[in-house]
Amino acid sequence: MSETVIQHRPRVIVIGAGFGGVFAVRAFAKTNADVLLIDRQNFHTFTPLLYQVATSGLDPEEIAYPIRGIFYDRPNVSFLLGDVTAIDSSEKLVDIQTSDGVVRHEDYDYLIVAAGSVTHYFNQNALQEAAFELKTLNDAVLLRNHVLRLFEQAAWTQDEAERDALTTIVVVGGGPTGLETAGAIRELYTYVLKREHGYRNLKARVILVEATDKLLATYPIELQKAAREQLESLGVEVVLSNPVVEASAENVRLKDGREIGTHTLIWLAGVNASPLAQMLDVPLGKQGRIPVTPTLEVIGRENVYVVGDMAYLEDANGQPYPMLIPVAQQQGTLAAENILRRERGWTQKTFHYHDRGTMATIGRSRAVALIYNRIPLRGFIAWVAWLGLHLVTLMGFRNRLQVLLNWVWNYFTYERSVRIILEPEQGRAKRETWPSTLHTPERVGDKIVDVA
Amino acid sequence: MSETVIQHRPRVIVIGAGFGGVFAVRAFAKTNADVLLIDRQNFHTFTPLLYQVATSGLDPEEIAYPIRGIFYDRPNVSFLLGDVTAIDSSEKLVDIQTSDGVVRHEDYDYLIVAAGSVTHYFNQNALQEAAFELKTLNDAVLLRNHVLRLFEQAAWTQDEAERDALTTIVVVGGGPTGLETAGAIRELYTYVLKREHGYRNLKARVILVEATDKLLATYPIELQKAAREQLESLGVEVVLSNPVVEASAENVRLKDGREIGTHTLIWLAGVNASPLAQMLDVPLGKQGRIPVTPTLEVIGRENVYVVGDMAYLEDANGQPYPMLIPVAQQQGTLAAENILRRERGWTQKTFHYHDRGTMATIGRSRAVALIYNRIPLRGFIAWVAWLGLHLVTLMGFRNRLQVLLNWVWNYFTYERSVRIILEPEQGRAKRETWPSTLHTPERVGDKIVDVA
Repeated sequence: MSETVIQHRPRVIVIGAGFGGVFAVRAFAKTNADVLLIDRQNFHTFTPLLYQVATSGLDPEEIAYPIRGIFYDRPNVSFLLGDVTAIDSSEKLVDIQTSDGVVRHEDYDYLIVAAGSVTHYFNQNALQEAAFELKTLNDAVLLRNHVLRLFEQAAWTQDEAERDALTTIVVVGGGPTGLETAGAIRELYTYVLKREHGYRNLKARVILVEATDKLLATYPIELQKAAREQLESLGVEVVLSNPVVEASAENVRLKDGREIGTHTLIWLAGVNASPLAQMLDVPLGKQGRIPVTPTLEVIGRENVYVVGDMAYLEDANGQPYPMLIPVAQQQGTLAAENILRRERGWTQKTFHYHDRGTMATIGRSRAVALIYNRIPLRGFIAWVAWLGLHLVTLMGFRNRLQVLLNWVWNYFTYERSVRIILEPEQGRAKRETWPSTLHTPERVGDKIVDVA
Repeated sequence: MSETVIQHRPRVIVIGAGFGGVFAVRAFAKTNADVLLIDRQNFHTFTPLLYQVATSGLDPEEIAYPIRGIFYDRPNVSFLLGDVTAIDSSEKLVDIQTSDGVVRHEDYDYLIVAAGSVTHYFNQNALQEAAFELKTLNDAVLLRNHVLRLFEQAAWTQDEAERDALTTIVVVGGGPTGLETAGAIRELYTYVLKREHGYRNLKARVILVEATDKLLATYPIELQKAAREQLESLGVEVVLSNPVVEASAENVRLKDGREIGTHTLIWLAGVNASPLAQMLDVPLGKQGRIPVTPTLEVIGRENVYVVGDMAYLEDANGQPYPMLIPVAQQQGTLAAENILRRERGWTQKTFHYHDRGTMATIGRSRAVALIYNRIPLRGFIAWVAWLGLHLVTLMGFRNRLQVLLNWVWNYFTYERSVRIILEPEQGRAKRETWPSTLHTPERVGDKIVDVA
């Protein structure tokens, strides 16, 4: 939209700086809407590459973009780092708790809810204790640290069964993220870790478990087959029709009774809308998503829009729009445009999804892709398309350059330099100190002084 | 040393993968010495650039090099990730606790102790509670997160005094690290943060406090003056002859009674040898360092060498060798060479330090340098020399390329993309869950289902 002057400055609150929220805020760019963006992190995450951070292929910072950096030149956009604790849609107020514990009350004329999704365990909440997730950058770094630490331990473990358990990884979920993660972990071992003695004779099993009988259920059959072949050629063990029924810190049990000794269960099998949905106090749809009108408004809540994973809206075939990034981006943009249209007294537009297709990469040079939902690609050309798309969608030139550099480096050298275990503890880092009873010599001149 | 075959395979333990330890291990590269390298982190840190990580100029991973990556092609080098808990120099045993809690006992023929240094508070241990340090990568990331979080809070704080306290930073220590850190923080604000509304009207004071009357006490007077001018031109307030006597989470008090409201006290004023020195049970020298012979051996402890910050050795003028990286590198190399010489029945060499000079950078294009301890440089040319030296010394081509890229980017765009607050919590990341009393709809077909 070109330069737009609106007589009244509408006050818009956008909750969430993911793809939906960021694209919504962008659409307000050259208007005089007064926009407040809220997120619990001070950066936007390029989530498709979280699995690369988790498998030491990229630094966390390469897929994180500071929110203030995105909107620094937009004087009508403010950013508040905090947690939304309540929404009062009759009073049009949002409560936000900031890191100092204070709760702020912010009012709005319009609200765009874009808080994304969380991992879902299908009523098997006991699994959550044992499982690793991959929804946020914190998740990715924790998982990376965990896997590297276990390999370090394995290098020095004599007991063979324990050594195998340390280096066996179970990935649950036969969708694109599951495939990408399983493939990348297997490659981390095969191409990188295995080169180092101490690691050479480890089994390093990667087992991809799917409850249904299909990988990539939404893809054409031939791509499902290609994906499975690619995974197995990498050395990933594919287990279908066999959900996880139990998991502890030491092992995982499948429905058919099979037990796998492992300390690493990665759960990528289900998502629900963010629990923030409850704050709107409306009936919720499947996966806890908030039903919206075709103009993306919440039924019965004036001036509240929901976009992205949190929004439940069906297409012409009665199928809910999938929880995908392009959907969030397009909905975010539309919600903002609809608000501006209302302010001008124009009719709002209904949502139509422009589906450019989906793709999943499997390892360093394999992928499957479905372009425009029609054209299947596989193998190297799919991988090139995948690389191109991600580079274009990644935010920030510096990030793109860094990511490209890393990939090129990794591709030609098989090297993964991002193999560091870094975990700054909450609060103060552990300090080494001299015990207070030990007096260290202070006087200049004394060379050797007996310790008191 | 060229290909060396020794009849008996000496077993060498090296404690610490800093500059001393890594250079020692490197010197054993083409020999058949059986080397065990131990560190509590799985990576080597390029410490001179920690302040850049702390001020959002570099990603942590860019100055961290995985230890297994350094020695992957050295079959005679093993790496153990763990904490040394005891040294028995009569039995020639080292106890190491690994992350699973197990304590391993490893024997040695020779031991090289290279565990570095820790921050020292000059008997003001109460300050330690309030202070931030900058010795490890964890420290740097914690400090970065802290500063960014405070700025986020300040953007929304109405009370002016509190806002000032949130954005006032006190750096204690007039040595190179203090100057570099103070300068870089000031630049982070002036060139980066200030561009973003919400941050524009913050005071953002940076105060460098030094207890003595000199900055860079070991440099020539004219460079001390140049350093002070450069700092002040950046907007850093320099306070001399006025030590910190008290500090809390909210303010800092100086000797002359002055109180500064701040939540960020960075202590860069003193170092001691690592407390691991006590494990050798010998009399300790100044700063808790272990006195060594000119061949770097510990007096009275057979076959134990100490190198780097932990080693106390005087030069021809009776001055102890400074705690500097080139000293550690050269000592590490010599200790290894001396062990190999002993194995061959040759005389050991005594340590002679080849001093190539020192330098300190102050901001994005200023520095002071003293080349070969004789040639003073200042300003832009010193900065270029500093940049060149660090790039050369940084380990790993990928790291060098990334760091150079970042610097060039930052230099020309003033952008600091590394401004993310990322703190994966110990153990599991905080999870968002649906409360167990909330039943989310599972059945396909129901569009809107009342929440039970």
